[in-house]
Amino acid sequence: MTLPMQVPIPGLPARVRIHEVGPRDGLQNEKATVPTAVKADFVRRLAEAGLTTVEATSFVHPKWVPQLADAEELFPQVAALPVALPVLVPNERGLDRALALGARRVAVFASATESFAKANLNRTVDESLAMFAPVVARAKAAGVHVRGYLSMCFGDPWEGAVPVPRVVRVCRALLDLGCDELSLGDTIGVATPGHVTALLDELTGQGVPVDAVGVHFHDTYGQALANTLAALQRGVTTVDASAGGLGGCPFAKSATGNLATEDLVWMLRGLGVETGVDLDRLVATSVWMAAHLNRPSPSRTVRALSPTHHQEQ
Amino acid sequence: MTLPMQVPIPGLPARVRIHEVGPRDGLQNEKATVPTAVKADFVRRLAEAGLTTVEATSFVHPKWVPQLADAEELFPQVAALPVALPVLVPNERGLDRALALGARRVAVFASATESFAKANLNRTVDESLAMFAPVVARAKAAGVHVRGYLSMCFGDPWEGAVPVPRVVRVCRALLDLGCDELSLGDTIGVATPGHVTALLDELTGQGVPVDAVGVHFHDTYGQALANTLAALQRGVTTVDASAGGLGGCPFAKSATGNLATEDLVWMLRGLGVETGVDLDRLVATSVWMAAHLNRPSPSRTVRALSPTHHQEQ
Repeated sequence: MTLPMQVPIPGLPARVRIHEVGPRDGLQNEKATVPTAVKADFVRRLAEAGLTTVEATSFVHPKWVPQLADAEELFPQVAALPVALPVLVPNERGLDRALALGARRVAVFASATESFAKANLNRTVDESLAMFAPVVARAKAAGVHVRGYLSMCFGDPWEGAVPVPRVVRVCRALLDLGCDELSLGDTIGVATPGHVTALLDELTGQGVPVDAVGVHFHDTYGQALANTLAALQRGVTTVDASAGGLGGCPFAKSATGNLATEDLVWMLRGLGVETGVDLDRLVATSVWMAAHLNRPSPSRTVRALSPTHHQEQ
Repeated sequence: MTLPMQVPIPGLPARVRIHEVGPRDGLQNEKATVPTAVKADFVRRLAEAGLTTVEATSFVHPKWVPQLADAEELFPQVAALPVALPVLVPNERGLDRALALGARRVAVFASATESFAKANLNRTVDESLAMFAPVVARAKAAGVHVRGYLSMCFGDPWEGAVPVPRVVRVCRALLDLGCDELSLGDTIGVATPGHVTALLDELTGQGVPVDAVGVHFHDTYGQALANTLAALQRGVTTVDASAGGLGGCPFAKSATGNLATEDLVWMLRGLGVETGVDLDRLVATSVWMAAHLNRPSPSRTVRALSPTHHQEQ
């Protein structure tokens, strides 16, 4: 494969770290139940494809995320892989479970809006930050890297557009708790590039180092890659994506949620931005996973590079 | 609908003219045969949704494009609409047919690569330019606006990456023939934003006015909107798109070819760039057309704004 032609844009980062969320954020939103051995193989294949950070699973209570109820079984099967393997932890109990298994990276998840904090965590934003405080403190004390996810950074299904200052306030609170990095989530996919630029400018203008800021775009309205370009132009070097675009909305077959890692890698490859990812191996992994999920990948790059994929599903 | 939040990026154009290609480029690549009355209604609905340029049909010989064999019947049914209605003409015979019906805008189509010129026109690039010379000259003499499509501006399925100077040469030749505007086509969807920027910089650096340059991106690898953003950042104000993303590759149900007009309008709306398009009416039109084509729209914005659309197909 020789395409795309590499033509850099001056000023973009030389290298981007892709934070692969397929095994966690992807599978948690898929209807199909995936056997633990398949999940472990998925993580291993992603690492072999060159992804250096693979979010492996979640220690949220199985009642809330039954798809990932096997975290205790899964994590030891992948722990020796030579990549970063963050896991989601909702509270101290989750942190205890993760630490007991030797996790070296954890992630907490807050909301920029009161409505989603209430819906997802049954708390106000400030109550959820108070809940995360000891989680982050104890993780840091154990030498564990902490990522802070922030949902609804651009729009909220109940509240509409989310003002930038409100997002910045929660970002600063997460960093003040001790989070090493943030992931700015466009949970419902409504962001556009100017909004992305404005939020990043406000954050960095207030002294937040851009290296501490990751972006997490959803492709619900097809905007994720344009938003990513805007973020790269502001110096962001951590981009979340999901192999094959796993984790689409359940209402429509092959509808899209997460930005597909393959579509991201295609753009970065064209821009001459290093990722370390072998695109062919990644596509093969997503095609393999799609067979286990019994639905075709919504990634356009997967479809284009594996043209028989859809007939097979 | 209140989303997306409008946050401009300084330096982008205040207004973009969307060159809607659904009735021509879209339907010409759909398998289903669409009745002439439905096509006319499609053009009318697109105009009512606020699109100011709707490419209506093609005067290519029906042997090559049977889907648009009804151009003579269709055009008079839409000619009175208060919008620009360009039509495709391959040669002098096609121009005669278009002029006889009172067309005021025509488009010729060249290739940046020898391989595609041979495959699509059975001519070398220079032979095809020679064929277009009298078409453009006669159109201009009749006071008719001429667009020059240029295919394979970024990559070619036979030749791989296409060098920028080769594209620029054919662009200049089309302008020298008298074309009023160009449409730079990424026919196989492989372009990335740096490549787009490089081609535009080279063209404008050689004195081609950016107002004479439109972009025509395909979403085969999910790159179309990021490429559009790069083009806007270089001052491009004419963007081709296809309502509902019509015209996808035939090999996979709902696979994508043309950039969906809805996804483009979503981004431009968020950027505060005027288009004049009523997104809700446009989505309703694409959902209506999808029912006639018996396949769901591949546009992510159509899917998101019409969540029952897929169950209905």
